[in-house]
Amino acid sequence: MSVLSDSNARLAAARRLTSRRARREAGRFLAEGAQAVREALSRPGTVIEIFGSADGLRRHAELFRQSDVIVSEVSDKAAASLSETVTPQGLVAVCRSIDATLDQALASVPTLAVILVDANDPGNAGTILRTADAAGAQLVIFAGDSVDPYNGKAVRATAGSLFHLDVVTGIDAVTAVGRCRERGLLTLATSGRGADDLDVLLDDGQVLAQPTAWLFGNEAHGLPAAVIAAAHRSVRVPVHGSAESLNLAAAAAVCLYSSARAQRAAATREPSPRQPKPA
Amino acid sequence: MSVLSDSNARLAAARRLTSRRARREAGRFLAEGAQAVREALSRPGTVIEIFGSADGLRRHAELFRQSDVIVSEVSDKAAASLSETVTPQGLVAVCRSIDATLDQALASVPTLAVILVDANDPGNAGTILRTADAAGAQLVIFAGDSVDPYNGKAVRATAGSLFHLDVVTGIDAVTAVGRCRERGLLTLATSGRGADDLDVLLDDGQVLAQPTAWLFGNEAHGLPAAVIAAAHRSVRVPVHGSAESLNLAAAAAVCLYSSARAQRAAATREPSPRQPKPA
Repeated sequence: MSVLSDSNARLAAARRLTSRRARREAGRFLAEGAQAVREALSRPGTVIEIFGSADGLRRHAELFRQSDVIVSEVSDKAAASLSETVTPQGLVAVCRSIDATLDQALASVPTLAVILVDANDPGNAGTILRTADAAGAQLVIFAGDSVDPYNGKAVRATAGSLFHLDVVTGIDAVTAVGRCRERGLLTLATSGRGADDLDVLLDDGQVLAQPTAWLFGNEAHGLPAAVIAAAHRSVRVPVHGSAESLNLAAAAAVCLYSSARAQRAAATREPSPRQPKPA
Repeated sequence: MSVLSDSNARLAAARRLTSRRARREAGRFLAEGAQAVREALSRPGTVIEIFGSADGLRRHAELFRQSDVIVSEVSDKAAASLSETVTPQGLVAVCRSIDATLDQALASVPTLAVILVDANDPGNAGTILRTADAAGAQLVIFAGDSVDPYNGKAVRATAGSLFHLDVVTGIDAVTAVGRCRERGLLTLATSGRGADDLDVLLDDGQVLAQPTAWLFGNEAHGLPAAVIAAAHRSVRVPVHGSAESLNLAAAAAVCLYSSARAQRAAATREPSPRQPKPA
């Protein structure tokens, strides 16, 4: 009986994590679905407990076999109450917030980082974090009034990548740019009216091969002028057709993969000093 | 009185265009918001009529000043009934379907085209069309079981670019690939297990400078094997971090901008023969 009421109390506490305020107060968030739960479990110390429907737990039993987290079976309805999706997946992990301070995240200098400034669409923000991971970035900073990365829709859009990177939240954008510059990162502000054309920067292989932090702004308003001014350069993604602009996540994909390409080419040109010379 | 009932009947007919079947039967669709209405009006013969709330019409009066389409003021509630968005914009155009046959669209060979195969997320499909426009593409083919490009969410995600390109719908994917090949387009199928690394293709500037059709598959299942086999090459976007894969629209942005970059570089290397020689 007491075990049941304890489980009910924990379920109620988990359900409150669908609100941003409750997430902040508890320092916890929800990760839904097999992919997110698997990636969360692969980051030590992240998962506190797991709730699943009978069906959800049975289908994904292999995920918890090696794990010592508490797994509770709940009704389909209870599992759905923890979900923010139209088609609940019957599996939700309660996770510890994973964000670090900026000092912690910059202790070892990332080769590629993203600073989101006032980005307010959770799907876009999550997709950009996923793309940053794929491009080899180690850090995503949610600066200014950006959406909460622990929002259910944002977590889902990261497709598990949230658990692969360093995440920093709740920091002023100009401060973030300044700290990145101090640590030797090239800071590139994206803007439809940026002074530098991305293709021209990429032609000069050296520029984008440097450790870089890319800044992306709000979906409707772009980056604030003060933030653009704080960065080393402002960069525009060329628009060749009649499109007014690129979607934020599409522009981020083009920029981040330009850096990935330049960094990869530079790494190929300069073999590691640890590599033995040919005899 | 007869004018009013005529207007009511037209409003009811417009409202039915939120269903795919009605759109197909009528050969019409809805474009919502000032940006979409502006771009629709800029494509001759596209807009049949416009419905707007008093506020929506007043705020965007400059759009219709030069136009002779029928503009009907309707109640806020009626305008909202034509909207598929949470925050209706009070302005909706009834448009003629703009899709062409593949033969019409290939009559002059595009330099860059997209073939979406079984892409079923309207937001992704619309975003990819918008990115295709920005990258300089002239054609997007919605093949196989792809989402209807005239779906309200897809139209919105194109941000007006739907009216800038040739659109082909309702065609078998392998047939579309075959017709593109006949017209001399390089056909590139994207796949996480593609034989060619995108960066390596881009290093060989000649490959991606050719007129190209990029194939993108379903969000969950990718491209069918038969479609990959029908294309000239299968290409993978390199994944550098721990991400499982890229979001479909992000992968499309990286691929299309790689082609745009290669085509732009080739155009710069080979000045137009019409350009006068320096004296």
